[in-house]
Amino acid sequence: MEMLSCNLNRESQIPLYEQLYTFIKDEIMEGRIPFGTKLPSKRKLSEFLKISQNTVEKAYEQLVAEGYVDGKARKGYFVLAYEDMEYVQVENRMPLPPKEEEPAALFNFHPSQIDTESFPFATWRKYAKNIIDQENQELLLMGDKQGEYTLREEIANYLYQARGVHCTPDEIIIGAGIEILLQQLILLFGNEASYGVEDPGYHVISHILRNYPNEVYPLEVDDRGVKVESLRGKAIDIVYVTPSHHFPYGSVLSANRRIKLLNWANGDTERYIIEDDYDSEFRYSGKSIPSLQSMDQTGKVIYLGTFSKSLIPSIRISYMVLPKGLMQRYQKELSFFQCSVSRIDQHILASFMKKGDFEKHLNRMRKIYRRKMEKTIELLKPYQAEVNVIGDVSGFHVVLEIDNNLTEEELMQKAKDANVRIYPLSNYQMEKSYSTRPRIILGFAGISEAKIEEAITLLMESLLR
Amino acid sequence: MEMLSCNLNRESQIPLYEQLYTFIKDEIMEGRIPFGTKLPSKRKLSEFLKISQNTVEKAYEQLVAEGYVDGKARKGYFVLAYEDMEYVQVENRMPLPPKEEEPAALFNFHPSQIDTESFPFATWRKYAKNIIDQENQELLLMGDKQGEYTLREEIANYLYQARGVHCTPDEIIIGAGIEILLQQLILLFGNEASYGVEDPGYHVISHILRNYPNEVYPLEVDDRGVKVESLRGKAIDIVYVTPSHHFPYGSVLSANRRIKLLNWANGDTERYIIEDDYDSEFRYSGKSIPSLQSMDQTGKVIYLGTFSKSLIPSIRISYMVLPKGLMQRYQKELSFFQCSVSRIDQHILASFMKKGDFEKHLNRMRKIYRRKMEKTIELLKPYQAEVNVIGDVSGFHVVLEIDNNLTEEELMQKAKDANVRIYPLSNYQMEKSYSTRPRIILGFAGISEAKIEEAITLLMESLLR
Repeated sequence: MEMLSCNLNRESQIPLYEQLYTFIKDEIMEGRIPFGTKLPSKRKLSEFLKISQNTVEKAYEQLVAEGYVDGKARKGYFVLAYEDMEYVQVENRMPLPPKEEEPAALFNFHPSQIDTESFPFATWRKYAKNIIDQENQELLLMGDKQGEYTLREEIANYLYQARGVHCTPDEIIIGAGIEILLQQLILLFGNEASYGVEDPGYHVISHILRNYPNEVYPLEVDDRGVKVESLRGKAIDIVYVTPSHHFPYGSVLSANRRIKLLNWANGDTERYIIEDDYDSEFRYSGKSIPSLQSMDQTGKVIYLGTFSKSLIPSIRISYMVLPKGLMQRYQKELSFFQCSVSRIDQHILASFMKKGDFEKHLNRMRKIYRRKMEKTIELLKPYQAEVNVIGDVSGFHVVLEIDNNLTEEELMQKAKDANVRIYPLSNYQMEKSYSTRPRIILGFAGISEAKIEEAITLLMESLLR
Repeated sequence: MEMLSCNLNRESQIPLYEQLYTFIKDEIMEGRIPFGTKLPSKRKLSEFLKISQNTVEKAYEQLVAEGYVDGKARKGYFVLAYEDMEYVQVENRMPLPPKEEEPAALFNFHPSQIDTESFPFATWRKYAKNIIDQENQELLLMGDKQGEYTLREEIANYLYQARGVHCTPDEIIIGAGIEILLQQLILLFGNEASYGVEDPGYHVISHILRNYPNEVYPLEVDDRGVKVESLRGKAIDIVYVTPSHHFPYGSVLSANRRIKLLNWANGDTERYIIEDDYDSEFRYSGKSIPSLQSMDQTGKVIYLGTFSKSLIPSIRISYMVLPKGLMQRYQKELSFFQCSVSRIDQHILASFMKKGDFEKHLNRMRKIYRRKMEKTIELLKPYQAEVNVIGDVSGFHVVLEIDNNLTEEELMQKAKDANVRIYPLSNYQMEKSYSTRPRIILGFAGISEAKIEEAITLLMESLLR
């Protein structure tokens, strides 16, 4: 090729080399400069276009970098082969259809809501300010894969004191949410392991499990927790339970069943129990229920905890305590996973715990949630002919069993019409057949104390009258 | 049972009810109070032990709550059955063996290191202070599952301007690291999809994939990027590539191969390309290489990006851009996944981007890293008889091919003896057979400019002399 006629715009903000590069690239892409063509020499083209040789070189080098042209020392620049352009089709970038946005509700009784009015912003900000500091440069780099040691120390202390959990910081892995940790466990146990999960239960667990090749069996639940006998005759390896406070029924797994469950796990080397202790900090009568992990003498219980309830959901900090054997397997097989939580956030939380602010916060919140629970129960009393309240000694929600001859769908519609958001138990069920009367989950934690009467009265009047 | 003799310690810090509860629980667990036993009435026991009836009631209620005892109205409290205690074995909580801690090295050339001296701590702290505020209470609750809209807007703007990526905020999903997002993609594509990954390549990707049931094939790489012809004859559905800057070789996927790859993807409705654009911000010669996504007209490219290189690794914020069809599938099938990044952090980053600080930071860092790269190349020149430098126009590392008749192991040992940490290419290879001479990856980004001469001279003298 002797020469290239290219109209360069010297007034444009686009650099000349880039105009030349784009021009040549388009010519190649549209087939006007065929494969194998030798481009004009830099000197000749620069003279022809009245631009510097450097500018031509920059354009050519970019074409070489992107693979349109091959640059051979002293031999010049040659256009490379490219495949036919059939892939270039009609512009197909239609916007996504808008997501169905639910209109803002007057009151939202979602069980994941918390009280946001009492979060100690000033204290948290103080620790954040201390941690985000030039002195802490090393915190910008990747840290320990299991999470920061200082935070794991605080968690180990807290778990021992509050939950009777025996562990050292070395046995803890921190992750950005229970979902993330569960996925790591699924990989650890392998594709062949089959799971038993409480039904009803925390639905995200079964949703995740069912996206893996593993078998998942529902386990029936009553007012003493999961029915351990429902494990019989099923080839289950791993059981996922909430022994201290079943989600959503609020039942406590009885001592008898705990022992049965531990005995079951001891029946095979590859059996394990995952104990999700999601909101055990909030029990309003008697002392807290001991963790299952604290009864485990043989390394069969994996303890899962989270700061979603005890602190804030959006911080995304959870953790798991692995028995020794599993931790060694984890370190051998899954050590490529980096910790998924920001190191800065981990250090802020560690300071918050070390200085006693976490304990203070928990004690304060326990009182607030207890008052909200008591008020909720009190406000529901007038409706007791039609409403049975389940699970009223701990946590952030109760379950209402409603007996007024309406179906679940009809009740949901009535709440919707009153602009109140409630959640049916069936959302949390794998097998819909268990349920008798319609049940709804009433998360009261996010409703302010001043509004709780208005909220519950509005809801109950709309459901029952 | 008529009465229970229990020694209560009135001086103890442990409440009386808790002492009584623990005593009865231990008696039951050790079989000294058999199944079916009726406990003494509250009145009688309180008189006998000279404690209040309330204290006895509290102890009994805790036993009921934990399932050791059944409380029947007016009938009294009965010990429940429990299984034999065989599971209780010898205390088995030996500490984990200590992890092998590598001693601190004089210099660490890991490719994930970044320059930590130039991070704008004061600016970041300012935004953190503004976000952690009582006014932002709603940020404590769970947010949008795809990530905060405001951050997705900033990412979409940035991607369009810097990388030619076409997307709206609705097409972006934010996650706590590439690993987390990749796992979601694996679930989205299902257990049957098989993968092709660059070899050598970012080893974490193949490690994760090989823990899933999916098939994984290595794809050979040369100085024009991945060899697309190595896809032929393999039942591959999903290809994972780093087109702008191959990790670790630094090659750019040529225009010709890009078109071939897009054509390959168009050959079947279930074929997709995952483009990992991990460090494309840092190209030191010519303009940046356009993303593969920007050439994709048919919704076949998933674009993955991260703030690990452009900001800091420990913040754990990454994102993916899904083509329309896949996003609809994601919203339908995986909508139970909450966003894994703290909402507060997302808003801090959004402010940092919106106010122009991110662009400023990138421009500043690009200059710093370019100087470090130039210095590295310069310092390696005296060794060019034995050392071939690969991938020297962009990114945070170069690859050194070393030809002094030493094996990889011998070279690693020499570096170790000099207390310098380097990483062999074989760590990043699935099939070890490709390599010819030993290659090492030299990440220079974490070495301060003042020390780079000392570090490289020390390393090269120890490897070659």
